[in-house]
Amino acid sequence: MTRTAFFISDGTGITAETLGRSLLSQFENMEFTHVTKPYVDTLEKANALVTLIETTAERDGVRPIVIDTIVDQAVRRVVAEAPAFMVDIFSTFLAPLEEELATHSTYTVGRTHAIGQDDVYMHRIEAVNFALDNDDGARTYQYEEADVILIGVSRCGKTPTSLYLALQFGVRAANYPLTEDDLDENGTLTLPASLSKHRHKLFGLTIDARRLSAIRTERRPNSRYCSMDQCMQEIAQAEALYRKHNISYIDTTRFSIEEISTRMINESGLQRRFSPR
Amino acid sequence: MTRTAFFISDGTGITAETLGRSLLSQFENMEFTHVTKPYVDTLEKANALVTLIETTAERDGVRPIVIDTIVDQAVRRVVAEAPAFMVDIFSTFLAPLEEELATHSTYTVGRTHAIGQDDVYMHRIEAVNFALDNDDGARTYQYEEADVILIGVSRCGKTPTSLYLALQFGVRAANYPLTEDDLDENGTLTLPASLSKHRHKLFGLTIDARRLSAIRTERRPNSRYCSMDQCMQEIAQAEALYRKHNISYIDTTRFSIEEISTRMINESGLQRRFSPR
Repeated sequence: MTRTAFFISDGTGITAETLGRSLLSQFENMEFTHVTKPYVDTLEKANALVTLIETTAERDGVRPIVIDTIVDQAVRRVVAEAPAFMVDIFSTFLAPLEEELATHSTYTVGRTHAIGQDDVYMHRIEAVNFALDNDDGARTYQYEEADVILIGVSRCGKTPTSLYLALQFGVRAANYPLTEDDLDENGTLTLPASLSKHRHKLFGLTIDARRLSAIRTERRPNSRYCSMDQCMQEIAQAEALYRKHNISYIDTTRFSIEEISTRMINESGLQRRFSPR
Repeated sequence: MTRTAFFISDGTGITAETLGRSLLSQFENMEFTHVTKPYVDTLEKANALVTLIETTAERDGVRPIVIDTIVDQAVRRVVAEAPAFMVDIFSTFLAPLEEELATHSTYTVGRTHAIGQDDVYMHRIEAVNFALDNDDGARTYQYEEADVILIGVSRCGKTPTSLYLALQFGVRAANYPLTEDDLDENGTLTLPASLSKHRHKLFGLTIDARRLSAIRTERRPNSRYCSMDQCMQEIAQAEALYRKHNISYIDTTRFSIEEISTRMINESGLQRRFSPR
């Protein structure tokens, strides 16, 4: 039996969805169909949603789970009429918080992204530009201004990680691909000169050879570049390099980009330039 | 008086922080110092954290707010001893959910990012690559495979938005910069040929002229490109183009990248290829 879980908000739905997934993932033996409904901000939309929940309840043969962060009280009252198990985040926590803080909440939608956040926007844009300018191919080498320099073999996840760091935390991440030239210098495991003077900013990524081979096959099928042999060799040398120079590193096979980024920030004491949401 | 709010987790801390910021933003008249503590996953770290909370309470002269998603019960018991107002997300909601679902939660850390999510990773990587290959300068024009094509004047926010869509939702977003050549054709407001056959995939971005001028000034100071006149003219023409061709558009000055992306998905019925977290 599949249950439907609705993540509902009068804003982006990101909070409801993040929390909802987190809660439901604690029930490993159950299957849920996830439906996110953002911007439910009028009575009309609320009524349409109630109808959808009713239909879903009938189809599933069981009432859906609703996880919501609706701020508008009139809208919330309508949604509360739906035949669902309600996890109402704001009404659960705001009243006790109001008491603790001895003040009333302003109860406004989307306050996390209010105006006056111009510098957040600018930090993000600058960090994204920095990541793009200092990505793999581009090689601008603005390493002086980098908060962190990601290193690793081609296609191990450097670019998505540096972009995530930029978008989520405003962190300026350059990245440098370890090529055969860097890795193969008679096994001396020397750091490339452009990197060695920024050793304290380096962070290594590694990856499972099988996955790397699969990813590289998408780009260049039937090449030496994507062969298991080549992938295994490059990875072994990169990891040896990290160990020799005492560079922290993370396996991108085992962790999501969120986890890699938050672990990096946590381990290396990187300063976030802002925190969105 | 500033209160300190701790967002604590034995995982990435993303859920605790997202919900925490959302809740606290409802108290507009209060100031909070935010501290995120991810990966509190041993009794040792928990004890160190309790000490930090104690010191903070003394310094602030008021007990901190703690918003946590700690799954490990032994760790949570330690943290619960801290002198703080606790918003304990999992213990608040898991018990009622267990009852509703008539099952026990598995109570494991970080289940949202478990193994077996290989295809999520691949979707993200592919979508990021797609965004980069089809970004402004690159011009690969893989518009057939695009889920959406963002259009707008130079520096209005296309690249960060397309990258966010890729990373968060696996959506393949190409982007096309509207240049003077596109905009200025004797005021006929014709869509560039490469775009007109994909009109249903187009989504416009616009921006406040003052902010655009500031952003462009960072890239090319004292240029015609960054002058208010030039910015105002390009924006007016781009918006006229959107209206003439009935293209949905969003003002990136008024909304965060999260909001732009979720609104786009909501309005255009884009399919998310996955939902992380």
